[in-house]
Amino acid sequence: MGSIAIAEQLAKKQREISVSEFFERNKHILGFDSPTRALLTSVKEAVDNALDACQEVSILPDILVHLERADTDEFRLIVEDNGPGIVKRQVSKVFGKLLYGSRFHIWSQTRGQQGLGISGAILYGQITTGRPATIVSKTSQADVAYKVELVIDTKKNRPQTVSQQFEVWEKSSGTRVEIFLKGRYVHGKQSVMEYLRDTAIVNPYAQITFLSPDGQRILFERASTELPRPPVEVKPHPHGMELGILVRMAKESPARKITSFLQTEFSRISSRVAKAICKHAGISQDLRPKSLKLHEAKKILEAFEKVKIMAPPTDCLSPIGELLIRKGLRNVVGALRPEFYCPPITRPPAVYGGHPFQVEVGIVFGGNLPSDQPVEILRYANRVPLLYQQGGCACTKAVEGMDWRRYGVEQRGGRGVPHGPMIILVHVCSTKVPFTSESKEAIAPIPEIVNEITLALRECGRRLRSHINRRAQKAKTEEKFEIVRALLPRIAEKSAAIVCRPVPDITKTIAKIMNVVWVDEQVVYEDGRHKARIDVHNYTPTGKRFKLHAIIPKEALDLSSVNPRPSEIRPDGKLSWSLPRLSATTSSTIVYELPGLEKGDYPDVELFVSGINPINVVGAQPLPGDWDLVSEDVQEDEPVADYDTRQEVLASD
Amino acid sequence: MGSIAIAEQLAKKQREISVSEFFERNKHILGFDSPTRALLTSVKEAVDNALDACQEVSILPDILVHLERADTDEFRLIVEDNGPGIVKRQVSKVFGKLLYGSRFHIWSQTRGQQGLGISGAILYGQITTGRPATIVSKTSQADVAYKVELVIDTKKNRPQTVSQQFEVWEKSSGTRVEIFLKGRYVHGKQSVMEYLRDTAIVNPYAQITFLSPDGQRILFERASTELPRPPVEVKPHPHGMELGILVRMAKESPARKITSFLQTEFSRISSRVAKAICKHAGISQDLRPKSLKLHEAKKILEAFEKVKIMAPPTDCLSPIGELLIRKGLRNVVGALRPEFYCPPITRPPAVYGGHPFQVEVGIVFGGNLPSDQPVEILRYANRVPLLYQQGGCACTKAVEGMDWRRYGVEQRGGRGVPHGPMIILVHVCSTKVPFTSESKEAIAPIPEIVNEITLALRECGRRLRSHINRRAQKAKTEEKFEIVRALLPRIAEKSAAIVCRPVPDITKTIAKIMNVVWVDEQVVYEDGRHKARIDVHNYTPTGKRFKLHAIIPKEALDLSSVNPRPSEIRPDGKLSWSLPRLSATTSSTIVYELPGLEKGDYPDVELFVSGINPINVVGAQPLPGDWDLVSEDVQEDEPVADYDTRQEVLASD
Repeated sequence: MGSIAIAEQLAKKQREISVSEFFERNKHILGFDSPTRALLTSVKEAVDNALDACQEVSILPDILVHLERADTDEFRLIVEDNGPGIVKRQVSKVFGKLLYGSRFHIWSQTRGQQGLGISGAILYGQITTGRPATIVSKTSQADVAYKVELVIDTKKNRPQTVSQQFEVWEKSSGTRVEIFLKGRYVHGKQSVMEYLRDTAIVNPYAQITFLSPDGQRILFERASTELPRPPVEVKPHPHGMELGILVRMAKESPARKITSFLQTEFSRISSRVAKAICKHAGISQDLRPKSLKLHEAKKILEAFEKVKIMAPPTDCLSPIGELLIRKGLRNVVGALRPEFYCPPITRPPAVYGGHPFQVEVGIVFGGNLPSDQPVEILRYANRVPLLYQQGGCACTKAVEGMDWRRYGVEQRGGRGVPHGPMIILVHVCSTKVPFTSESKEAIAPIPEIVNEITLALRECGRRLRSHINRRAQKAKTEEKFEIVRALLPRIAEKSAAIVCRPVPDITKTIAKIMNVVWVDEQVVYEDGRHKARIDVHNYTPTGKRFKLHAIIPKEALDLSSVNPRPSEIRPDGKLSWSLPRLSATTSSTIVYELPGLEKGDYPDVELFVSGINPINVVGAQPLPGDWDLVSEDVQEDEPVADYDTRQEVLASD
Repeated sequence: MGSIAIAEQLAKKQREISVSEFFERNKHILGFDSPTRALLTSVKEAVDNALDACQEVSILPDILVHLERADTDEFRLIVEDNGPGIVKRQVSKVFGKLLYGSRFHIWSQTRGQQGLGISGAILYGQITTGRPATIVSKTSQADVAYKVELVIDTKKNRPQTVSQQFEVWEKSSGTRVEIFLKGRYVHGKQSVMEYLRDTAIVNPYAQITFLSPDGQRILFERASTELPRPPVEVKPHPHGMELGILVRMAKESPARKITSFLQTEFSRISSRVAKAICKHAGISQDLRPKSLKLHEAKKILEAFEKVKIMAPPTDCLSPIGELLIRKGLRNVVGALRPEFYCPPITRPPAVYGGHPFQVEVGIVFGGNLPSDQPVEILRYANRVPLLYQQGGCACTKAVEGMDWRRYGVEQRGGRGVPHGPMIILVHVCSTKVPFTSESKEAIAPIPEIVNEITLALRECGRRLRSHINRRAQKAKTEEKFEIVRALLPRIAEKSAAIVCRPVPDITKTIAKIMNVVWVDEQVVYEDGRHKARIDVHNYTPTGKRFKLHAIIPKEALDLSSVNPRPSEIRPDGKLSWSLPRLSATTSSTIVYELPGLEKGDYPDVELFVSGINPINVVGAQPLPGDWDLVSEDVQEDEPVADYDTRQEVLASD
């Protein structure tokens, strides 16, 4: 075979690959690598679409998921929503063409973004069962629904209609998709049920009915009628913009001046900022964007980093919030009783590659959570639970990259997934979540995102450490207390008997030995509300006057129930009390009630003290510097002894 | 806003997404999620392409990789090969269009398969630097090379020529690609250097020259001129075929009869097997493929699993082989000295979804490898080292899913990555490696593949356990030996002195106490070859006659050096010796030489015995049942005592 023949022969093999062919061959990339996962992925894509459709037009979602066994390893999946429906001429393309959709060219926080999900599920169904998908859709204006049976022509990546008709549908609007597919229905981890339950928790405004293949009907009831605001579109933020993209945007812009180009195409660039950028970059404000040169674009990029530009707007992001994070964790915990719910951390919004994103983290620890296992990591992206590919996810990388030993958690060698009784929940929301693959199960470890997750984890870690320390300190002091309380009275009795005198009162002696202020919190659930009580015992020989502070979930607190009234109440749930002077061996009590929590949802309230030497306090931490108290702190411990030391019995007489 | 407006308004947003736009937005999916990884991915895609091009036409590859700093975080990457070149009319499409290539529609083991790699790198360069890529290519027939500067029009996914010309090139044929891109050059793990070194090891027929950004010139010399055979195309194997694909293939087939369709479109279906399939499926042999019904196709699929069909052909797969696996491991080990090189395991070819694949595994253990770290996992797919996304990879899943404690390796809770002084190498080759994403850094955990890797790991694990046991047994016996040898002579001396008689010979007494046959292997490296010596000491009170067996890498052994001659030599490197009768306290020695190994490459030779009670043997294992010896085994231990027990000194006289 001559050389020309070789090159020519190779040339003949060169061909265009249709995106449908590509995924027909690489269905695992879309999340269809095993029958178990394929079933979950299909449900997920359909439900995510339904939630997006409803949220986009502010309809409270009412979603039916019906999974029926069609053969030994074949299922019929029906997902039906009450969304706005799809106009007839678009139905076939939306479901029968890969890389077709409405959300790709818009920067907003939606679950679906790629135009690959549901058409991928239909492709998978067709590959594994050879059967077409059926879609029914009705817009509220139409009298009848449009029903189409279609397959995907993979060579051409386009829908091929098998049959179509109009039919009466009782719904005012909505969409219903029916797919036959190969699958395996499992229970427990990574199951359809787990996905639906997790989804219901972080989307409490949705009602989801699940008809399972076992013939069960499970209703995830709507827990709130408060819809998150519809996703807001944003322009790219200048931070992290790529040079080539900037050049292309400038070339494509209709703007006549570079300043107006900057203002219209980016978020957070005002006229003033645009001028400052031009000045910093050393280019004319009147430069035509179309004639922007590469070196000028480079200067603008540099200016983006140098000129002060506001952080991205937050209204385009919809975090799940503290209460739902807590609820998500509680749900996973099930019947187990963890010892500590770390208050969830919500980071301020940040940017990667021009996309705003935000990180939330929650941790539960201890109790009877399994202690000989790697910690469990729950991952969410844009309110969608991620159940596969944990290893490759930014969330996991961040957890693995931290030295958890510093926070009192066991971790071999100070890296890798730590071991112990802990569950970590991470949520990343963004106008564009960078998934590692089209199956959208793992967030790419983009440095900016890993960094934000790490910062949130560290914050949780510090709180965890402070809890663990407090617990250890309390346990140690408690032990000492027990000994002192058991021993001293017997010594007093014996001594009194020997010298034939009455048994003295030794309370104050105990106080002198213990020398701590003991802060204790107790909670009971009664009459549909949590009733909390903080007891402060002064087990020191001197009188104390100081402030007690607590962070209490403000949305759950009944302020009128707080007694005594706090001296300061702040909107973020930080409460402060100036306690009355506590004489030696006396106590003081604070009570409050939280009606806004479900049973068992009670958080670990963090207690702090100021105006007292914190090493003498058990059960509360020194107040961190960032509290910025309005009123001045009270004086440090009063110096005068509070009782007559001559009363002491144990003096060596 | 009325409802019709909503649905209509949404419809207006529905758009087709070009595959280039998709990856412009999702460049991390192609492996460009950080500047460090982006640089590596670009080098990798270009080098993989160069290797594929050469191998396809059986040219010994001579590849230049030149990385030059163009700006603080910008590099110029040049990769040049001596492959067959690309004809002019294809150059722009191959490099300037995503999902375009020659290897997608062919089932053969190649590195590139998707038509996404190199055009993805060019897209990334364009995104991050705004600069076009330059390609020079010359086929051996052409007098001059064709040079083109191009950018990718992302909206249309097609190349846009910036300039083109012909130029003289000294090469007879080859291709050179030059890309400017944002990157970060690092050393150590996951670096360009590591990738090139690992690549050179498993592709020893390639010569790779690397000009690094530090101005260094590193030459990875060709270590072998033996090219692996060019990739062989195969038809899909019937096992794991999907219903929908079968139906589509039948519809598209020009065959007139279902039997000829089966024979021509699948591998391993002969006329006889085709008929058996039809019979089992209960369909006529004359059925026209085009009219195949869904239920009939289902029957055929069932028949595929029931009728005996040969395993897939192996000639389409090119495993890296024991020697190169060992070399790859030795290279990673570096200056450390592991204690045990487990003989690499090559599994027989298997099938997933119609694609043949094959798994190889090698393990090193012990010595001064770090013992407090998770074990290191080296992953290869089709001779390409995988450096990212370890967590999501089938190789890692298989390692994590095994209970390593059974094999003597530390593993918390019996799952997860084990800890200890161990490195595991896994290679998967296939006509289609199912990567989890287009960045081709992790193999999807397809059940069939995870299963094969697990089987190979278990086999290695058993050998490792046997090594660890042997070591422990030897250490224990050695300790006993030391004590006996130190103590008995002194007791003999003392006793002799007390009774005023000469010190007796206690060799046989020691033998009686020890009661073991001791097998010991020692190796020295001299005159460019490993010289090995097996000593067999009979430390028992009776004569022994038995067989010794060893597995020695046959490709490295000098058979003429083996002394005494083995009684049996088998092609797989299994050697057996019928040892002469060994009297009590005597020894026997076997020597052999291995010229075919590099210094330090000497394997842990496995020794076995038969014809003797193995519990009396230290340093060799009982012969496994699968050896199928040709000659009969010698008798079990001879019963008659070999010396006069009256000679014993320590009898209580």
